Amino acid sequence: VPGGRAGLDVGGTKCLGVVLGADGGVVREARVPTPRGSDALVAALAGLAEELRPWDTLGLGIAGRVTLGGEVPASPNLRGVRDAPVRALLEAALGVPVPTANDATCATLAEWRMGAARGAGDVVLVTLGTGIGGGFVVGGRLVLGRHGFAGEVGHMVVDPDGIPCVCGRRGCWERYASGAGIAVQARVAAEAGRLDVVVGLAGGDPEAVRGEHVHAAARDGDPEALAVLDGFAWWVALGLANLVNVTDPEVVVVGGGLGTAADLFLEPVRRHLREWLYSPDERYLPAVVAAGLGEQAGAIGAALLAAEPAALPSDPGNERQLA
Amino acid sequence: VPGGRAGLDVGGTKCLGVVLGADGGVVREARVPTPRGSDALVAALAGLAEELRPWDTLGLGIAGRVTLGGEVPASPNLRGVRDAPVRALLEAALGVPVPTANDATCATLAEWRMGAARGAGDVVLVTLGTGIGGGFVVGGRLVLGRHGFAGEVGHMVVDPDGIPCVCGRRGCWERYASGAGIAVQARVAAEAGRLDVVVGLAGGDPEAVRGEHVHAAARDGDPEALAVLDGFAWWVALGLANLVNVTDPEVVVVGGGLGTAADLFLEPVRRHLREWLYSPDERYLPAVVAAGLGEQAGAIGAALLAAEPAALPSDPGNERQLA
Repeated sequence: VPGGRAGLDVGGTKCLGVVLGADGGVVREARVPTPRGSDALVAALAGLAEELRPWDTLGLGIAGRVTLGGEVPASPNLRGVRDAPVRALLEAALGVPVPTANDATCATLAEWRMGAARGAGDVVLVTLGTGIGGGFVVGGRLVLGRHGFAGEVGHMVVDPDGIPCVCGRRGCWERYASGAGIAVQARVAAEAGRLDVVVGLAGGDPEAVRGEHVHAAARDGDPEALAVLDGFAWWVALGLANLVNVTDPEVVVVGGGLGTAADLFLEPVRRHLREWLYSPDERYLPAVVAAGLGEQAGAIGAALLAAEPAALPSDPGNERQLA
Repeated sequence: VPGGRAGLDVGGTKCLGVVLGADGGVVREARVPTPRGSDALVAALAGLAEELRPWDTLGLGIAGRVTLGGEVPASPNLRGVRDAPVRALLEAALGVPVPTANDATCATLAEWRMGAARGAGDVVLVTLGTGIGGGFVVGGRLVLGRHGFAGEVGHMVVDPDGIPCVCGRRGCWERYASGAGIAVQARVAAEAGRLDVVVGLAGGDPEAVRGEHVHAAARDGDPEALAVLDGFAWWVALGLANLVNVTDPEVVVVGGGLGTAADLFLEPVRRHLREWLYSPDERYLPAVVAAGLGEQAGAIGAALLAAEPAALPSDPGNERQLA
């Protein structure tokens, strides 16, 4: 009896595992906190994989850059993981192949094969959370990039004189269009004396305002909260327009932690996308839709990796070494 | 005896045609001025194709957006061409199939198959001229996008409060990193009293300064001209870094009219690319190289279209109509 396809998704706080049944639906789920360091991480993943048994195949998604060989040079999301051959270590622990990719790449695969972008040939996915991740499908194939690093859309620079980024540059898109960005914009409005309802929800302290407070007030129709969300949508749309100009997709999927509030900001995103897109009246506009698989998207995509022909160069061995 | 593969490239000022011999080299070339209006354009292209005979196959590249069906909704480069089924009209005139794509897409194909990016699996090409065009190879396949519009990199917004663009938006990359951008930056320096040598080459009028004057002074080692080129390279690198973050290529090819001065600015572009790229010390850096095929690149790529399996979605008929 086949045991199904299992996938593990390593995030900054938790590792989530799923097993897919024959119809692609999730039949089992398990999770553990993400430990510090690559040895502890691999042990936790091996344990999670054992807990999920039985399964036939296993795949792995990891937050941060992942090489085509499943190595993590460094991840801002994973403490103590550096130059770590995570795939090789997990394969040694379990004795099975474990195809491995970036978590947003996995989420893209899942939303394309099973979720909001099903049936499309060209897809852009962005995950809006603490930062911004991304993934692409081009011409019916999942894009990994020459070294596995495609989709680092959060560090697309959209204002060279802009807000300093954790990455050391300035004006990265994720400073404006992520959960961190929405909080910054809300605090600016709060300190200017606007946003009373939102500040009240945050206990009266403008410094404590987070995205959730803005969402809650917006759901109650608070116009000041809605204005902050419109400004946030403006920045989301700017980056999406750049990605649409570059890749010309059929569907743009918006997921990640903020995806749960997509009903509040996707309509303004669509409106602002027309403003930012090159020649909007003389082109095809992509559909802009909310992700459909929630927090399981990465793990579901990891489970699908084993059977997916990705857009790989014909000779991935012919690559330059890490600097 | 086979007649070879012919390609036509429609630019804003001229239409250039080539025929490739069995080894891929150009064996014949012809050109005509680009006329106004789609009927005159198709007649000129048909005449050019006749002049180039004998050939076995014919392809077409066009400046501006080109749908997968070879229609031109509107092109800022072609006067009087709007909602024009250029491919269908030329096929009717000649009685042969004429695969058609955007000119930068054709140039990408040519540089990948015959030029500076030969052998690579993942390529970004940008053409720096009056504006900026672009094209991509992903996983060993030429990228067209869902509707044929992939590669509009010049209108990637890199400063939302920036210089107004001809497209109606602000801060498009091509305002800074094109021939127009270099001229603007040079004039600003000239009006600030710097750049005496360059202004002298322009006949003493800061308003008359163009890219060629900056290049000429830089070739003579003029430090003020070199500083302007360094500022230009900074902007080129910013946009390239965005494209590299998004697509993770093996090779970045810089072509277009400014490509002839690549020896003056590619080294500063490589240096600034490290500054703009996310996590440059923990990733593979792409090679950044000058295009190898000069002004014939688009026509050569058009000649290669007929035999090229592009990254097309499986069902291109399932698309939304032009707005």
